[in-house]
Amino acid sequence: MTVPRGFPDEEFRSRCTKAQSLMAETGLDALLLTTEVEVRYYTGFLTRFWESPTRPWFVVLPATGAPIAVIPSIGTHLMQQTWVDDIRTWASPDYDDDGIGLLVETLRELVPEGGRIGLAAHLESHVRMPRAGMEALEAALGSRRLVPDDEITWRLRMVKSEAEIAKITAAVGVADRAFNRVGEIARVGVALSEVFRRFQMLCLDEGADWVPYLAGAAGQGGYNDVISPATNAPLRVGDVLMLDTGVIRDGYFSDFDRNFSVGAPAEAVKMGHSRLIEAIDAGLDAAKPGARFCDIFHAMNTVVSDGGAPSDAGRLGHGLGMQLTEGPSIIPADQTVLEPGMVLTLEPSVAVGGGKILVHEEDIVIRENGPVCLSQRETREMRVI
Amino acid sequence: MTVPRGFPDEEFRSRCTKAQSLMAETGLDALLLTTEVEVRYYTGFLTRFWESPTRPWFVVLPATGAPIAVIPSIGTHLMQQTWVDDIRTWASPDYDDDGIGLLVETLRELVPEGGRIGLAAHLESHVRMPRAGMEALEAALGSRRLVPDDEITWRLRMVKSEAEIAKITAAVGVADRAFNRVGEIARVGVALSEVFRRFQMLCLDEGADWVPYLAGAAGQGGYNDVISPATNAPLRVGDVLMLDTGVIRDGYFSDFDRNFSVGAPAEAVKMGHSRLIEAIDAGLDAAKPGARFCDIFHAMNTVVSDGGAPSDAGRLGHGLGMQLTEGPSIIPADQTVLEPGMVLTLEPSVAVGGGKILVHEEDIVIRENGPVCLSQRETREMRVI
Repeated sequence: MTVPRGFPDEEFRSRCTKAQSLMAETGLDALLLTTEVEVRYYTGFLTRFWESPTRPWFVVLPATGAPIAVIPSIGTHLMQQTWVDDIRTWASPDYDDDGIGLLVETLRELVPEGGRIGLAAHLESHVRMPRAGMEALEAALGSRRLVPDDEITWRLRMVKSEAEIAKITAAVGVADRAFNRVGEIARVGVALSEVFRRFQMLCLDEGADWVPYLAGAAGQGGYNDVISPATNAPLRVGDVLMLDTGVIRDGYFSDFDRNFSVGAPAEAVKMGHSRLIEAIDAGLDAAKPGARFCDIFHAMNTVVSDGGAPSDAGRLGHGLGMQLTEGPSIIPADQTVLEPGMVLTLEPSVAVGGGKILVHEEDIVIRENGPVCLSQRETREMRVI
Repeated sequence: MTVPRGFPDEEFRSRCTKAQSLMAETGLDALLLTTEVEVRYYTGFLTRFWESPTRPWFVVLPATGAPIAVIPSIGTHLMQQTWVDDIRTWASPDYDDDGIGLLVETLRELVPEGGRIGLAAHLESHVRMPRAGMEALEAALGSRRLVPDDEITWRLRMVKSEAEIAKITAAVGVADRAFNRVGEIARVGVALSEVFRRFQMLCLDEGADWVPYLAGAAGQGGYNDVISPATNAPLRVGDVLMLDTGVIRDGYFSDFDRNFSVGAPAEAVKMGHSRLIEAIDAGLDAAKPGARFCDIFHAMNTVVSDGGAPSDAGRLGHGLGMQLTEGPSIIPADQTVLEPGMVLTLEPSVAVGGGKILVHEEDIVIRENGPVCLSQRETREMRVI
């Protein structure tokens, strides 16, 4: 709880230097950043204002030196609080030119004729600006070209610094403490929507800055999906209640769930939950530095589906940090090698009959000697309320 | 508080029919929808799972008939709860082909050779899929072309149905009640971060499904920006505390703020706040059906800046509904004509000396006879805590 807010400038300088070294290797003269997570990764610019889709925001990371912000004037004061000195602004929204002119001018200054500007193009990315603006930008850049960014930011973000791990650990602690208080708010007869509302209040009470994600379900002997908002149906004896939350603490996420049996669990539920914990054991055994993400998949999948096809979720876990879910994915195709400093979730699911499933999730960090669970590891016995 | 959840299928059918009529006018054979708000507008698919950037989601609105969902299998069960029958899924994430093949197949089936597929390209929009996927899609479509969507969805969303207005009204009511309880949580010595945390709990307690947006500030005699997250600085006598929140209730937003003087307000603060309320009066006077958004701008701007340049915010309000901010913007360039059913915010800001500002915001709906304030109108006297 005593993790300091923000990062020293050195953290951002180090991220930029690493990116610039990779840019030099692959022949990129600049990176153009358009999304919340990319902008924040290099600048520390943290605001919930991205909830408004109105204005585009740009940051340019040149071949050397600090990033340059090309942003709406509404963000000037907050950007001035970061380590970024070169802040260029326009009064947005501007229907004639919403920042494209200023961005072109900046890129012309930083990138030589014929130069290459890296832009995210890979899985899980998108470009946060209007398509018409993108076309205007490409036309105005002339011989300077927008090309894929070689996944530079994406790859750097996979391995967390100790300061980042401390923030994720703090967020995970918030969710752990909230899960331990579910008995205060959930009982037979309470509407699931009310449980969701009260659970978010518990997360805030325990120190979340905000609660960007809560999904879950309650169903007799299991549930059908894991991404639904709450219904108003009251909890009944025999339900399994699952709450899957991502809380934010100083810009970093937790992401894990807990299952609760309303009354004593049925045999299939008990066995299913036990199987999930066994899968976590297998995942932790496999998650050693030098192993691959696909190795974790196979270790866990053997336990939960006897090696058959994975569930509708399509994966058994994923990276975690500045976003609720980050790469890589725990799937058979992922060959990424585990490195110390990677933070990920293990998220097995198991069929428990009647089309129902149970899903369990823990957050872990990879250390030199092997994985360490950041969330309080759940036991085989499902929690009962 | 008794607004029913969701919409009857008829609401979605009507949205689709209207869009299809505009598509016919402008020669579009389909719309391709990729963002949360576009997908939800036509299908009713409501989930917080968009917080995960991993998977692309697609919905195709053909020239006639219901939308077709082309989505990751993790969303199958939830999409089946909507009115959409034709649901095509793939196991995502798939590193080789994350839905593009299935989408191409669907578009080939629905759109004739040489046909035109509308995709959002306008201000405030983006395409939510990887840039590499977009290039693969365009290549595979051949003679079928992705073209700007003529702002069809954007324009339709500007005018709300009565059912939508009821949902926004419910969300606004939640925030109103929470603002009326700020005295319970804010007093001298309490850290702003704690005020933010507790205020979100109040919003949940008053019926918010979740709290996607809270920004604000506290400063002596005013504040410097309106998009910052909270610091740990304690409230002091002489501070003006501003809380600007967007709460969600059944998928629809409120968006307005309230100012609180910690102790008796200084003269400049009193006058500034009074000026803001006067600007709202002027905005309401101007916001008649048939007037334009720029008319509201000029009416308000005359009051807050004697007709000079607007503040860094770049506008004096905006549309409101499924998103925290929607078009149009209240700026001099906006010629959109006000129609009954439009919901918007009036958001004047005023300089109060020393580089400080005050911002005030109300939510209104345009009716045949003129505007109606959805939020409890604030008086000239600033609230005191």
